[in-house]
Order: sequence, then C-alpha cells, then structure tokens
Amino acid sequence: MRQGTVAIIGVGLIGGSIGLALRGRVRADRVVGIGRDRAKLEEARSLGAIDSWTTDTAEGVAEAEAAVVCTPVTRIVEDILLAAGRGPDSILVTDAGSTKARIVREVEADPRGCATFVGAHPIAGSERQGVAHARADLFEGRSCVLTPTPATPPDRLARAREFWSGLGCRVFEVAPDVHDDRLALTSHLPHAVASALAACVPPEFFPLAAGAYRDGTRVAGADAALWAGIFRENRGPLLEALAGFDAQLDRFRAALEADSAEDLIRWWDLGREHRLRFPPS
Amino acid sequence: MRQGTVAIIGVGLIGGSIGLALRGRVRADRVVGIGRDRAKLEEARSLGAIDSWTTDTAEGVAEAEAAVVCTPVTRIVEDILLAAGRGPDSILVTDAGSTKARIVREVEADPRGCATFVGAHPIAGSERQGVAHARADLFEGRSCVLTPTPATPPDRLARAREFWSGLGCRVFEVAPDVHDDRLALTSHLPHAVASALAACVPPEFFPLAAGAYRDGTRVAGADAALWAGIFRENRGPLLEALAGFDAQLDRFRAALEADSAEDLIRWWDLGREHRLRFPPS
Repeated sequence: MRQGTVAIIGVGLIGGSIGLALRGRVRADRVVGIGRDRAKLEEARSLGAIDSWTTDTAEGVAEAEAAVVCTPVTRIVEDILLAAGRGPDSILVTDAGSTKARIVREVEADPRGCATFVGAHPIAGSERQGVAHARADLFEGRSCVLTPTPATPPDRLARAREFWSGLGCRVFEVAPDVHDDRLALTSHLPHAVASALAACVPPEFFPLAAGAYRDGTRVAGADAALWAGIFRENRGPLLEALAGFDAQLDRFRAALEADSAEDLIRWWDLGREHRLRFPPS
Repeated sequence: MRQGTVAIIGVGLIGGSIGLALRGRVRADRVVGIGRDRAKLEEARSLGAIDSWTTDTAEGVAEAEAAVVCTPVTRIVEDILLAAGRGPDSILVTDAGSTKARIVREVEADPRGCATFVGAHPIAGSERQGVAHARADLFEGRSCVLTPTPATPPDRLARAREFWSGLGCRVFEVAPDVHDDRLALTSHLPHAVASALAACVPPEFFPLAAGAYRDGTRVAGADAALWAGIFRENRGPLLEALAGFDAQLDRFRAALEADSAEDLIRWWDLGREHRLRFPPS
C-alpha cells in the first residue's frame, strides 16, 4: 500500500496508535494531527505519532488523501462532516467510533459525507486514555469492522479496506445496525458489567481480591464521559443485551436458591463452553 | 523458617504450587503428595512438586509436621479430619479452601480437628486446573487469610502464620464468617458475573470481541463442579452480593432509560473510583 497525507482528527490512544502505525509500517507521506488541545497535539508530535499538527480542521485536511476521525462518538459526526466538506474531492473519510448506526445515517444524509465516508470500528483499545498509551502495534491482527451501506461509493470502500489492512487489521464488513447489535453484547455490556462489579466491592476489601476481580473490573477504569456517550448511542441494543444478561443471572439465582449442584453445573457449563472457544491472546 | 515433612492432600494447581514453593524457597525436609488419582500424583512428582506420594492418607500424614488440604470444598472437611486424626499429635493441619464458615465450624466440632486446625485461604489461583499449571511463585506477595476462632490453639495459629508466610504470602486474620461475606463480593460474585457474561455472547460474535470480553469472562473457563461447590458453600452471602450487584445494574438501566449523560457519568464514576484504587499487578 502507498499512502499519501493522512489527517487524524483526535489524537488520543486510538488516533495516536494509528499515527504511529502510519509513520512506522505504512510509511505514509505525512501524518497531520488535528485537535483542540495544543498541549496534547504537541505531545503526540513529540512521541512520533504525527508529523505536524493544527487546531484548524480545514487546514489540516486540505491536502489529505485520507482523514480518520477518532473523536468521542458524541462529537464524531460533526468532525466527519467537517473533514468531508473541507478536504479535497478525492478524500477518503473514515472513523474509529465504537457505534455506527446513527453516525452512518447522519453522515450519509449529507451529500459530501455520503460521497467520501466509510464507517469503521477497529476492535482494539484500552481502559487507558491519551497518546502516551498509544502503540504502533495496537491494531496488529485485530478485527476492524467496516460498515458500508448501499450508498457507500465502491472506490472509497476499496480504499478503506486498504487503509485499515495497512494498519495490520483483519478487515470485515457488516451493516451498521448489525455492528451495533453485536457490539452491545461483545463490548458495551461487558463494560457496564465491569463497572457494576467495581461499584459493589469496597476498596477496603481489596486485600481479599485477586484475579477474578482484577480482570473482571479492568475496563471500569475507563473514562466516564466517553462511555456515557457510547452507552447513549447504543441505548436500544444495550438495553436488550442487559435483559439477556439479567436472564442469565436469574437462572443462576434460581439454581443457587434451589441449592442444586446439577443446575449450577449446567448453568456454569454454558458460559464455560463459550469461553473455551475464545481465541487465546 | 525450618520446615519438616509436609503432607499435601490434593495436588492440583494450588497443592502443586504449595509443593513447588516448599521444595524450592522453603527447603522443607520432605513433601508427600496425597490423592486418589495415581497418574496425577505421579505427574506432580515428575514435575518436582512433591518428593513422593501415596493414596493412603494415614500413611501420608504419619510423619508430617504439617498437612495442607487442597481438595474441593465439598470434600475438604473429611480430608482435614482424616489428616488431624491420623497425623502425629503435634501436627498442624491447614487448608486452602475458598470458603471458611462451615468448614471451620465442622472441623472444630471434632476434638482432634479443633486441636490441630487453622483455616486458611491463599488468595491466588487461576481458571486453569491441575499440577501442570502449578507455579512456585503463585503465592509470592499474595494475601493469605487465616480464620482462627477463640477455639484455635495459639501455637497452631503461630505455626500456620509461619507456614503461609514461608510460601511468600502476606498473612492476615479475620473471622470465618467475615471471610465468607467478603469473598462473596471479591471472588464468588465476579466468577458468577463472568459466567453470565460468557453465556450471553455467542461464539460467532467473537471476531467483534476484544479486551473487555476477554478479561471480563476469563474465569468462566474454570471447572463447573469446583465452582458449583463454592457457590453452594457460600450461598447466603453470595445471594446478598448478587442483590447488591442487581441494584447497581438497576441504577445503570434507569440512567440509560432516562438517556441521561449526567446519571450515566455519576453511575460510572463510582465503579471507576473504586477500580483506580486497586493496586496495579
């Protein structure tokens, strides 16, 4: 893959990791960081995640072959449309938003958005925020879901596949609403559950906590506003996922109240069978 | 610490790790493995976790200065009383059971049990089973809870402190029922939640799952019968813990249904504040 100038809007953990991969393995001609916080942009530059930066999106995307928008989902449509509207006609605009249905719908309602945009979600991240935690290999071997629709221009879809593959991702495609339904189960529910679990355990009990607590609550350390935004974006599917989770817990409670080893074992084995099929990392 | 002959009853992940630590850092005179499965005992010997083995508990504890019982909680009282009854008068009997109230109560109802036993629970483990996963450093820097009662002989308590400290544990003491109440929150609830979460996510969605799913469900891969036993042992405290967890999820659902960023952020921040105080591993 040959990659010209790329604009990254929002240079935190995800945007910074994209920058490191673009400047490293991809050898893009130039990587421009765009954001609102000069100190963070300068930190990204000094860490080698971008070549240069600007707080002016129009200026930042002016010569970009591609723009990738990595801002929080609450702001992302606005940033996508700005890049689409101010970039060259030939620009590819893609994103890294954790939800897709509303974003894709609103972007496609705009002619320039529709002509340039391919929704994307690299399935990689961390409970840590900020470019200081960015890693050039964050996307290596990870899935990246593209969410094209019948309105997506085929040439932009081809370029988006190439862009995300170039970062090391295994790329595949599903419809935006299918993406959101599945992510409600694979990511948003696990985040909500981790936070509820963390809230239940008073810190004075920590000397009695080990791996199950540590791993089960890891992502509860993530940013509140970021996750409130994702939860609200994916409210419907997440409420459904939550109902399914409640049903599982109800089965557990019933087996425990019945004091039935057999029911508890049968209940446990469903989750166990799933988990044992998860690829080791 | 000087350590004579130690008998380990149940040489799996925990018992095997105790054996490796005893033969390594502690340099115990002799470590005897006791169990029912000859192939597993021979595996433990060939891995260096024990010096010798027997399927006859009376023979195995005959010359033991200490016996540590690492069998499943459903069998543990029987094994503790056998070691107490067949070992020399001077024997210290301790255990590694994940629950304590019933175990300690039943052991103390027996005069030999009461005269020799100190309940213990090293807070370390893995979703993996078997001596093949044992590690000499499993207990290094981990908590070990001792659960003495007014009936516990002071000399045995002192020896139990020395025994578990010698394995690398930070030892502290709480009453058996306090142990069980706290472990319901710090370990048993996280295991139940991990299993419920794993059950919710169909394996065909795994390409869309990343760290939150992977870590949040890790312990769901553990053994069903083992965990059914622990859940049943700690039924009362676990049902209470589950009610607290439900209340947290209800708060989340209400905030999500209200579509309130403010409520979601406030809800998330409680778990986040707890989690950020958990010691990094």
